[in-house]
Amino acid sequence: MDGSSAGLIGAVDLGGTKILSLAIDAAGRVRGEDVRPTEAESGPDGVIGRIRDSLRAALAAAGGGSYAAAGIAAPGPIDPARGVIVEAPNLPGWHNVPLAARLVEALGCPALLENDANAAAWGEFTAGAGAGTRHMIYLTVSTGIGGGLILDGRLYRGAGGAAGELGHVPLVANGPACGCGGHGCLEQLASGTAIARQGAALLAGGTAPILERLAAGGEVTAELVHAAAEQGDAAARAVIEEAGRYLGSGLVAFTNAFNPDMIVIGGGAAKIGARLWEPALEELHRRAIRPSRDQVRVVPAALGDRAGALGVAALAREHLTP
Amino acid sequence: MDGSSAGLIGAVDLGGTKILSLAIDAAGRVRGEDVRPTEAESGPDGVIGRIRDSLRAALAAAGGGSYAAAGIAAPGPIDPARGVIVEAPNLPGWHNVPLAARLVEALGCPALLENDANAAAWGEFTAGAGAGTRHMIYLTVSTGIGGGLILDGRLYRGAGGAAGELGHVPLVANGPACGCGGHGCLEQLASGTAIARQGAALLAGGTAPILERLAAGGEVTAELVHAAAEQGDAAARAVIEEAGRYLGSGLVAFTNAFNPDMIVIGGGAAKIGARLWEPALEELHRRAIRPSRDQVRVVPAALGDRAGALGVAALAREHLTP
Repeated sequence: MDGSSAGLIGAVDLGGTKILSLAIDAAGRVRGEDVRPTEAESGPDGVIGRIRDSLRAALAAAGGGSYAAAGIAAPGPIDPARGVIVEAPNLPGWHNVPLAARLVEALGCPALLENDANAAAWGEFTAGAGAGTRHMIYLTVSTGIGGGLILDGRLYRGAGGAAGELGHVPLVANGPACGCGGHGCLEQLASGTAIARQGAALLAGGTAPILERLAAGGEVTAELVHAAAEQGDAAARAVIEEAGRYLGSGLVAFTNAFNPDMIVIGGGAAKIGARLWEPALEELHRRAIRPSRDQVRVVPAALGDRAGALGVAALAREHLTP
Repeated sequence: MDGSSAGLIGAVDLGGTKILSLAIDAAGRVRGEDVRPTEAESGPDGVIGRIRDSLRAALAAAGGGSYAAAGIAAPGPIDPARGVIVEAPNLPGWHNVPLAARLVEALGCPALLENDANAAAWGEFTAGAGAGTRHMIYLTVSTGIGGGLILDGRLYRGAGGAAGELGHVPLVANGPACGCGGHGCLEQLASGTAIARQGAALLAGGTAPILERLAAGGEVTAELVHAAAEQGDAAARAVIEEAGRYLGSGLVAFTNAFNPDMIVIGGGAAKIGARLWEPALEELHRRAIRPSRDQVRVVPAALGDRAGALGVAALAREHLTP
């Protein structure tokens, strides 16, 4: 082991389609990286083997040596205290998988598991857009909507590690049913999936000629709705504006409940830009309570796809190394 | 000063209609009490004089001596760090009143100011229904709806002391306008005021014969709607049931966001009982996310009108005495 690899942390962001691994030094710098497909169909044993291989590849890219500790960010629900993935909607066959213990075994170093949104929140708080704040709400708006809470400078997990399910705050009475069991959840109103669903409904009604041309008979995605809006499709614009207003209702709820310094928004929806953001911020500034609405800043995430891995690396360094 | 008055804390709950003062010993026992009208029309100077007199009367009832410190719970928005009441909707003429400093001057002991819902939350957490929990949400459902957050065993105030405005989480898109500037806030859907407003709407429609008889041409209150429901008025029952379902949507939002051990519900609405609670709990258990919905208990508050004073006394003892 040479100087640059002393005290490296191995950090993984486990997604349904890809595994991202980073080897991170004591200063928080990325010294090695590996990305590979999850191949979720290979089941827990196959995927855990690929995580191990990916971490080893990141270590080799960093110049070799060994890991002092490892952290893994994974979609919930998880049990962070026991290091167990309880269920993983995107990973078929994962039920009560003791992932932290399996990685300890595979890597020979201590390991911890954290919910991916919590890990990304901690990453943005310690090394990204939220650095220097004390009360930071992280919201990831993508196919789903997830959240992480930094309250009084600490990651808030709640009674069972499940706090921060901000995509499942109900905002419309008797609104669309959600996979969580609820109705009218923020996720059903403002996620990429919601925008795509509303876009598909426009095609059924024949009111969105540009979107219809872009879709060309294929699947309607949030990206296509956005492209149609950019090209002047009024109905597509209205769909994104409505999603933005619902996102804004969520920002009102979180601002009134938490009185945060900052709300950091990550995930693919950030790419839609002003068409989604402007109605959201207008709703926030018109409807949230003073002084909270004057004290909150809403900013895009800074760390992109690396937020979860960087955050779980910081947690692993804090909790697992001397 | 004799033994029983050593280290007494003077605690006040300042409301729009009455002042409650308690003299509380080191074991948390109430040794003296005074209740008197606020006489809000006398303005800040008059009310502060009455607070001083009320605290002195509570001290006399406790057997005399002096206060080691004082705490005052008051309706917000307040600035807890500076001890200032920024605005007080129920107290005409109160703008930026440095109440903590005025009480230090009047009483000759250190004093602190806390938002009344936060104080009541801390009271229920330290000495009431939430004793022994670690993540406790306090909700007071009365003419308005307020909240207080105990997270990781600590009172969570947010960036500017305004966290916990749980009555102002929006639950209905384009719902009724709220005095806070929002629309469709929980307070507009499930408070006593909301029940009374819906009851009055029934009379206008002529669909609630029992309520109409009970109101006898006078004002419709939540209590009257409840009485009519008890006597079999189907429309009055539906109003309370709807308010209960909205309260349940709030419980879903708070359970998913905070993953609490317990939600404690205080305020006058608790008196309505099962007609309000049952639809609320049904909504919670049907729609909140697992595992959070299995981990939360919803219970009535235990300290009644004394929760705020007992809570602010505990805060004053913790922060202002050796």
